Amino acid sequence: MLLPMAPTDSLFLLGESREHPMHVGGLAVFTPPEGASAADVRAMFDAALLGDQVATPFRKRARRSLTSLGQWGWDTLPHHEVDLEHHVRRDALPQPAGMTELMTLVSRLHGTLLDRSRPLWEMHLIEGLADGRYAIYTKIHHALADGASSMRLLRESMSEDPHRQNMPAPWQPHHRLTVVPAPTGGTDTQGGSTLPGLATLPGLATLPGLAWGAARAAVGEVAGLVPAAVETVDRARRGTGGALSLTAPHTLFNVPISGARHVAARSFPLERIRLLAKHADATINDIVLTMCAGTLRAYLHTRDALPDNPLIAMVPVSLRAPDTGTGDRTPGGNRVGVLMCNLATHLPDPAHRLETVRNCMNEGKAALQAMSPAQVLAMSALGAAPLGVEMFLGRRGPLRPPFNVVISNVAGPRTPLYWNGARLDTLYPLSIPTTGQALNITCTSSDDQIVFGLTGCRRTVPDLHPMLDHLDAELDLLETAVGL
Amino acid sequence: MLLPMAPTDSLFLLGESREHPMHVGGLAVFTPPEGASAADVRAMFDAALLGDQVATPFRKRARRSLTSLGQWGWDTLPHHEVDLEHHVRRDALPQPAGMTELMTLVSRLHGTLLDRSRPLWEMHLIEGLADGRYAIYTKIHHALADGASSMRLLRESMSEDPHRQNMPAPWQPHHRLTVVPAPTGGTDTQGGSTLPGLATLPGLATLPGLAWGAARAAVGEVAGLVPAAVETVDRARRGTGGALSLTAPHTLFNVPISGARHVAARSFPLERIRLLAKHADATINDIVLTMCAGTLRAYLHTRDALPDNPLIAMVPVSLRAPDTGTGDRTPGGNRVGVLMCNLATHLPDPAHRLETVRNCMNEGKAALQAMSPAQVLAMSALGAAPLGVEMFLGRRGPLRPPFNVVISNVAGPRTPLYWNGARLDTLYPLSIPTTGQALNITCTSSDDQIVFGLTGCRRTVPDLHPMLDHLDAELDLLETAVGL
Repeated sequence: MLLPMAPTDSLFLLGESREHPMHVGGLAVFTPPEGASAADVRAMFDAALLGDQVATPFRKRARRSLTSLGQWGWDTLPHHEVDLEHHVRRDALPQPAGMTELMTLVSRLHGTLLDRSRPLWEMHLIEGLADGRYAIYTKIHHALADGASSMRLLRESMSEDPHRQNMPAPWQPHHRLTVVPAPTGGTDTQGGSTLPGLATLPGLATLPGLAWGAARAAVGEVAGLVPAAVETVDRARRGTGGALSLTAPHTLFNVPISGARHVAARSFPLERIRLLAKHADATINDIVLTMCAGTLRAYLHTRDALPDNPLIAMVPVSLRAPDTGTGDRTPGGNRVGVLMCNLATHLPDPAHRLETVRNCMNEGKAALQAMSPAQVLAMSALGAAPLGVEMFLGRRGPLRPPFNVVISNVAGPRTPLYWNGARLDTLYPLSIPTTGQALNITCTSSDDQIVFGLTGCRRTVPDLHPMLDHLDAELDLLETAVGL
Repeated sequence: MLLPMAPTDSLFLLGESREHPMHVGGLAVFTPPEGASAADVRAMFDAALLGDQVATPFRKRARRSLTSLGQWGWDTLPHHEVDLEHHVRRDALPQPAGMTELMTLVSRLHGTLLDRSRPLWEMHLIEGLADGRYAIYTKIHHALADGASSMRLLRESMSEDPHRQNMPAPWQPHHRLTVVPAPTGGTDTQGGSTLPGLATLPGLATLPGLAWGAARAAVGEVAGLVPAAVETVDRARRGTGGALSLTAPHTLFNVPISGARHVAARSFPLERIRLLAKHADATINDIVLTMCAGTLRAYLHTRDALPDNPLIAMVPVSLRAPDTGTGDRTPGGNRVGVLMCNLATHLPDPAHRLETVRNCMNEGKAALQAMSPAQVLAMSALGAAPLGVEMFLGRRGPLRPPFNVVISNVAGPRTPLYWNGARLDTLYPLSIPTTGQALNITCTSSDDQIVFGLTGCRRTVPDLHPMLDHLDAELDLLETAVGL
């Protein structure tokens, strides 16, 4: 039976092309249990592959037919029709292998399209890391799950108990094995999160879809919207950013893209950033944004491509209502708004950049709070619409992009997680560049670190590695600036 | 500067989709030189990657623009703009690895699309075979090179001299290092080949393109064509096959396909097949076709899907004129015609199947010889047209396919070849399944063996491995049948 698909989800199928694969990805790196090796971890997955049960989300196939009048819907395949050999794949790294070789492989895997005649996911079991760890790259189509849902699927297949055994593989049906806190919502002004500096949200890639839905949802309140919108646009014109910006310069990131991808990632101790935020009277998210700001400035400057005007980042923030900050995941509670943040890339002093970012985010949040949730969503839809339209029509980007880069922060697990004793060390998020937005920065936090995941079009943003070093350098500079 | 692309070549770009990647592939397996290891072979390639020179065919990029009025053309990139890291990739096999693991990886690599914003090729250096050998999978878009051209590129980068050193990598410019005989033309009736049983030709995948050109070329002779065509069609209707067939039954191979691929291959000693051909008063090609016939019968029978009527194979044959059988490759000398061969899959006795195949091929060749070359090409175009139209329009196949499977034989190197001392053991050909033709069988011969390469749509022909065992069994049965 064909179950209906949300129109916003089907947009991710309709808008997909070889230049714009529409899947999100995650790279998980595991340390084998005490006394075991990567080969033992692989053996556990091999054993799981012999099972014939597949969890429902991994059996859903997108389909449209004459009887559905050409609309996309979901089939749920019987267990035995899921070709696990196709979905779960063994990969290996050329020797000797470190993170460079791993990222090279993942870059390639992230750039190829999923097979639409099957459930829209792949899981790659990757062996060969010289340090004895084991890696898993997962790829899920955005029509099936957004970044946050993917992360939830992963989290639910894991345990906080390092001694727990006989756990099913992520694609197998499982009952909740342990009470793992679901990601709490709340922007950093609400204090509902143990990572108060982070804007928790369901992943960047949800935005265009949500924006569409938001535009519809806001129709009833649209009369009250105009004054707020005008005020915000006005602030944007004054060059201070705010919820909506019209002043983003043209950069090398804002061009049409091709299909191949390049990914890079680096993690930093969360404590280091938390301390810096405290000294600077800023949020963790402000520090993350300022690190990105300095990195983009240095990257463009090296290439003689730094525009005179500051770059504008689109920053997704959670719109969870304050009274549901209990950790419950109520349907529809996971709505996302966007702020436009002035990254002050024209300023040479890191302290000045931090000040601009902090003020801009505070102003933007104040503006968001002055609006009703529906107004905020409509506002966000307004800001994101050019992205959506370009992406889905496959058109060349406008001469003046609505913003230069998306920087988002997805809350990861907040306690160490294990799968049959193997510890999840790091989870690297990989997202979706689009036409006009050739670079995406997605950050994930875990119990003790924060990972910056960069996903770029391999052609237009050819070398992401220098950005990792710039991130390092920017953190140092900021620490020096606040006297740490 | 945009150089024009032949319209037949641009069809391979226009007709491509995620379900129909239009590239050919080859898997070469090398034995390292005496005293060296696979790691040494890889080190030689790594060294070659440091060079910045790229041979012209590997710098050609397909492009179309407003100024070219939307027509596809070729750019030749400067050397430094070719991102070799993108094109030449290091891969590894999960351990322990044999041919199964190698074929699994190659199946996946063969099912993904090439990046159109770059020159249309990839080369994968694959390490990890337990027997110490080294594998290279090459993927070239059909618009850039057909199977035979790809094989020529490979051959020209190699030497007959096992002691030759300092040879450039296949993608690097090179002068002809040694006089390697180019593939000679000639159908097996012409005796111009050292493998007289093989129909040498430029690879199946050329056919639709050539058929198109042929249809145009034949316009001048079309008046004289009709009687020959009528006679051939008449013979086909009588069920004996011939140059054109209208009686192919519907089978599980003749359905729409999806994007993922499955490849499998097996090699047999050429001497064994040569001896069998001699005893059976048949050609090597007849034996190859009869082995395929028995294999298809057994495969379909096991699945309870054997049709009552015999399967029809489309068999490409070379149309090289007899007076150019010198081994010279004159432009345009590489034209291909097709015969339709009745595979007699309804007959339980292998000897009867061989008799039918042999008679059918002889009749077909006689019919081809009675026609002028242009008439033959037009005839072939007529036979192949339904394939071409379906493929390029992406439509569902007709209820009654023009034939059930393509079986082609591409002449490979006839002497042992070496690259910097590493011996090319086997070259596995991979081809292009299309809508309505979910299975392709391409054979390549080398100095002492013949390889059957099966390329199938992973969804519609889920398990190719049983076919390999059937090929084994059929060869045994045929030997028994002729008293060997």
